[in-house]
Amino acid sequence: MAKATVRVLVNGYGVIGKRVADAVARQPDMKVVGISDVVGDYRIKIAAAKGYEIYASVPEKAEEMRRAGLEVAGTLQEVLSKGAVDVVVDATPEKVGAENKKLYEGQGVKAVFQGGEKHEVAGVSFVAQRNYAEALGKQFVRVVSCNTTAICRVVGGVHAKLGIRRARVSIFRRAVDVWESSHTGIMNTVVPELKVPSHHGPDAQTVVHDLDIVTMAAKGSHNLFHLHMGMLELNGRATRDEVLEVLREEPRVVMVAGGDGVKGLNSIFEIARDLGRSRGDLYEIPVWEDALTVSKDGREVYLMWATPNESDVVPENVDAIRAMTEIEERADRSIALTDDRLGMVKRLY
Amino acid sequence: MAKATVRVLVNGYGVIGKRVADAVARQPDMKVVGISDVVGDYRIKIAAAKGYEIYASVPEKAEEMRRAGLEVAGTLQEVLSKGAVDVVVDATPEKVGAENKKLYEGQGVKAVFQGGEKHEVAGVSFVAQRNYAEALGKQFVRVVSCNTTAICRVVGGVHAKLGIRRARVSIFRRAVDVWESSHTGIMNTVVPELKVPSHHGPDAQTVVHDLDIVTMAAKGSHNLFHLHMGMLELNGRATRDEVLEVLREEPRVVMVAGGDGVKGLNSIFEIARDLGRSRGDLYEIPVWEDALTVSKDGREVYLMWATPNESDVVPENVDAIRAMTEIEERADRSIALTDDRLGMVKRLY
Repeated sequence: MAKATVRVLVNGYGVIGKRVADAVARQPDMKVVGISDVVGDYRIKIAAAKGYEIYASVPEKAEEMRRAGLEVAGTLQEVLSKGAVDVVVDATPEKVGAENKKLYEGQGVKAVFQGGEKHEVAGVSFVAQRNYAEALGKQFVRVVSCNTTAICRVVGGVHAKLGIRRARVSIFRRAVDVWESSHTGIMNTVVPELKVPSHHGPDAQTVVHDLDIVTMAAKGSHNLFHLHMGMLELNGRATRDEVLEVLREEPRVVMVAGGDGVKGLNSIFEIARDLGRSRGDLYEIPVWEDALTVSKDGREVYLMWATPNESDVVPENVDAIRAMTEIEERADRSIALTDDRLGMVKRLY
Repeated sequence: MAKATVRVLVNGYGVIGKRVADAVARQPDMKVVGISDVVGDYRIKIAAAKGYEIYASVPEKAEEMRRAGLEVAGTLQEVLSKGAVDVVVDATPEKVGAENKKLYEGQGVKAVFQGGEKHEVAGVSFVAQRNYAEALGKQFVRVVSCNTTAICRVVGGVHAKLGIRRARVSIFRRAVDVWESSHTGIMNTVVPELKVPSHHGPDAQTVVHDLDIVTMAAKGSHNLFHLHMGMLELNGRATRDEVLEVLREEPRVVMVAGGDGVKGLNSIFEIARDLGRSRGDLYEIPVWEDALTVSKDGREVYLMWATPNESDVVPENVDAIRAMTEIEERADRSIALTDDRLGMVKRLY
């Protein structure tokens, strides 16, 4: 069956947007119409050099971007009103997406929002392996944040197969993203998030609706990846082997081991670079196999995983596009295609 | 009633030893006979300049220390065999204390070991406000580590008053101590402890014997203080006010608030410096009041605290000396005296 090629525009070429653009460009059933942004710095110049058409997200920025030396094909509104776009991936800063929704509604275009927006902006929050069907045919879908994506994959996977009574998760966040480490961030400290529970738990419930989860979070003095610690109480009992089997079967979850030299978040980044991944990105969630522990009574599971904060949501954006446009109705087939095109694996080494 | 002055020697003038020496020197019922170590670097020279008698922990190091310019009064064995010491505070590197035990046994001297030694080395592990009585008259007592001390004060306090069914604690550790940050440590990463549960939980049980506790830990890229996150399931129910009241009453636990600008571990260090504390040390455990949360059903308590890793065990060492020598049989009176002499408070600001 011949399928349409979905025409995608990425609005906001930042940490997530640039990665989603490249990921969409690799899909056989999608193409990147262009990217839109409001600045003309090195990031957008690299996008232009890659061959992406550049649009100005707001008309008043077009001239500034041209003065910076960019060839600007037009404004976001212009390209949308031509009917040239099927889906906008909105990766603008948080709360800007909610503002943009009016434009997308006015133009009758579908849009994928990111985790910085509230669940209500889209009405459907999305992690492909958990609730692909909820997004089928929808105009608006929200891909949840990196932390929530990781929780939904790992904890959600255990919940789906073994049933969790209560999940309690601690999150040690990176201070800031790499690209902005020169002008913000923290140094030699840990900064707790004083709102307890942190927003990640309720956010995970927008995807895994029946999960009892509480999260606490703090920022560390580093800029690559988050570390999560999960303490899960099961409804029943399980062995360590059973939990390991669940995690091995779960898509986009990979096992790593300290015994193989994977000592910290830095090791994860080095692996992604050694694998030749674009930008050193990892789309999978690495779970430490040697730390995976089940209590003697089989009722509690303790585990730790790394959350690649810049990149784990990238395949979710791709799958969200397939679900919304219904070019693929099955989650497993969309996931398999995305993973194949992004070079994703079930064993990193 | 006139009480004897306890003669104390501190063996190992490192992070803990130097702080304990200064703390003992401030007590009205103790005096520092001297300190012993195996090096002659800036640390020991400052000790000498403060007026402490310097001994060589092992005879073969005495000459080297003298060549470094130190006046060495003799060896540890010599001063012990003169009967000039009632209690040795052994703050040598972990496992060295266990070796030294033979010397202390041979000389019939009492000794306080630190948390780097196994519980079995002393037979009694100690946190003053939890189990002072267990140490009364003992020859050997082990003051538990900084993390375990903090857990025993905070979680132990809630347990004593409200009863905990299960405590689950995540620990975000400092990478390394300040003094050794020039030659070891980690940078821009988080390193999980892959042994789960981490040793802190079982260690807390050596003091709070009936506490069901599981801990997980990771090292962050900073060198001052640990951050702990506690998720406590109570036997019954409590209100937030009840928990707050328990923590406010608990000795050596202080409340801090993000609303007062206490944003991270760095704020805690700055407070200790602003208070004029020696070395910027904090002996108390600061708990974030605004993060303290009780679940709607009153059965779970979520809280976060900072653990001053260099200094929170210092008052415990002082109290351990009083308990072992029985110059004070009551925990509350020993704690009050120690706290008074160290300038400890129940409100930092």
